[in-house]
Amino acid sequence: MEKIRRNERMSAMMKVLSDSPNRIFTLSTFCDMFSAAKSTMSEDIDILRDVMNDFDLGRIETVTGAAGGVCYRPLVSRQKAKNFICDLSTQLSGPERVLPGGFLYYSDILSSPDTVRVMGEIIATEYCEAGADFVLTMETKGIPVAYATANALGIPLVIARHSSKVYEGSAVNINYVSGSGNIETMSLSRRAVKENQKALIVDDFLKGGGTARGMIDLMREFNVGIVGTAFVMETASPAKKRIQGEKSLMILKITDDDPASAIVAPAPWLEA
Amino acid sequence: MEKIRRNERMSAMMKVLSDSPNRIFTLSTFCDMFSAAKSTMSEDIDILRDVMNDFDLGRIETVTGAAGGVCYRPLVSRQKAKNFICDLSTQLSGPERVLPGGFLYYSDILSSPDTVRVMGEIIATEYCEAGADFVLTMETKGIPVAYATANALGIPLVIARHSSKVYEGSAVNINYVSGSGNIETMSLSRRAVKENQKALIVDDFLKGGGTARGMIDLMREFNVGIVGTAFVMETASPAKKRIQGEKSLMILKITDDDPASAIVAPAPWLEA
Repeated sequence: MEKIRRNERMSAMMKVLSDSPNRIFTLSTFCDMFSAAKSTMSEDIDILRDVMNDFDLGRIETVTGAAGGVCYRPLVSRQKAKNFICDLSTQLSGPERVLPGGFLYYSDILSSPDTVRVMGEIIATEYCEAGADFVLTMETKGIPVAYATANALGIPLVIARHSSKVYEGSAVNINYVSGSGNIETMSLSRRAVKENQKALIVDDFLKGGGTARGMIDLMREFNVGIVGTAFVMETASPAKKRIQGEKSLMILKITDDDPASAIVAPAPWLEA
Repeated sequence: MEKIRRNERMSAMMKVLSDSPNRIFTLSTFCDMFSAAKSTMSEDIDILRDVMNDFDLGRIETVTGAAGGVCYRPLVSRQKAKNFICDLSTQLSGPERVLPGGFLYYSDILSSPDTVRVMGEIIATEYCEAGADFVLTMETKGIPVAYATANALGIPLVIARHSSKVYEGSAVNINYVSGSGNIETMSLSRRAVKENQKALIVDDFLKGGGTARGMIDLMREFNVGIVGTAFVMETASPAKKRIQGEKSLMILKITDDDPASAIVAPAPWLEA
C-alpha cells in the first residue's frame, strides 16, 4: 500500500472520530488503519486538536491509561450557541406561526436535521460532564432533538410512551397530570434502563412542567437519578413550573388574546 | 493570521462537510474560511475525494454551475452495509429477545445512536438519487432511524401522528387498518408538506403493511408522490404485504409457538 500522507490521515481520522462522538478510539485503531507509528498518530492528533479549537468545531480529547485513546466531543462555544439560538428565535417570532389557543407552530424546526443537530450539541455541551448514562424523552415531538443530544454525548436514547406496547415487554406505568390538567399515563419498558443509572431529560416544550415531573417520577420507579432537564422551548408563563433547574434554549412569550404578541427569545443563561 | 496548512484545511473542511450531508457549500465559503485561493481549495477537495473513497467513508462530490460547489454524501458501500447488518442480525437473533405473542424486543437498537446512524445511511444510500423532498415516518419507534435517514439525505423529517394536536394547526386525518385489524387514525399537519413534493417512507417495522399503506394514502391526500418505502425489520410472514417494493434491512422469522425459533437475517437485496 502506498504511504498515506498526513493530510489524508487527518481528514479520514476526523471523519471517523466525529461520526461517533465521545467514543474512545485507541491509538492502535488508527495505527492499523493508516499503517503508521504511534508517534506519528500522536502528532496528527495534536494538530487535529488545534484545528478543531481554532475553527470552533468541537474538541479532540486524549484519554490516558489502559482504556485510553482519543475521542471527539462536539462541544459548542457559548458564543456560537448564542448566535445560533438568536437566529432561530428571530425565525420563530411573529404572528404567522401562532395557532388558535396561543400555541406556536415549530414542528418544522424540530425535525430539520441541520437545526436539530446543533440544538442537540448545545444541550450536550451543557451536560457533557454530568455523567448521564442515557437521554430520556417522552414521545413524540422531542425525539429528534433528544436523539441528537444522545448522539452528541455518545449515549443511548430512551423513549417513554403514553401506553405500554406488546413489543416492549413488561413495563412500568405511572400516571401524571398533563399541562391540560388531565391525568395521563406514561410507560417505559423494564428492559430500557438499569437501576442506579443517570438520566438526562430532553424534551421539546416546557409549560407547566407536568410531563417533565412525570418523567422524573418515572425514573424514581427505576431508581434512576436525574442529572438535568433541557428543553427546546419554555413558556414565560406560568413562571412557576412543576420542576426546577431546567435549561431551555428559548423562551416563548405569547398572550392568548393577541397572537401578534408572540415573541421567542434566547434563554437568559445563553447570555452569561 | 498564520497561514493554514493543507492538513488543517482538509480536516476542518471534512468536519464542516460531513456535519451537513448533501448540502452544497460554495468554494468561496472555504476560501473565506481558510484565506485560500480557489485553486488551492480545488486541490484540497480532489485529495479529500480520494481519501473518502480509499477508506470507504462516503463520497465527496463537486457540483458545477451557478449553484455549484462541493458536498459530502454519506454513502455506504454494499459490502460495508452487508457486514453491518449481518452483525446486527446475529445480535438480535435468539430466544432472550422474544416477547409473549411472538414479538421481538429491539427498541434498544432503534435508539442507539451509533447503530441508528449507520442504518439511516444505508437506507439513504439506496434512495440517494430518488429526489425525495422529505422523509415520512409514523410515530414513535421509527423516528430515530427516519431522522438519521433524513440527516444523511439532507432533507427534513415529517412525523405523522395518531391524532391531531393543538400545536400542529389544522390537520388532515385518515383512517387505516392497523396490523391488529383495528381501525386507527393517522394525522398530519397541513403545514408539514407541500403539494407535488416527494416522500421517502421510513419506519421501524413492517408486518402486514397496514400502517405503511396508511402513510401512502395520507400522502395521496396531500398530492405527494412516494419514491420508496424502507424498514428496519420486516416479518417473513405474512409474505403478502399491503404494500410492494419495500426495502427492509432485516427479515424476522418467528413462530408464536416456538420462541426459540426467532431468527433475524439480513434482507436478500443486501446480498446482491
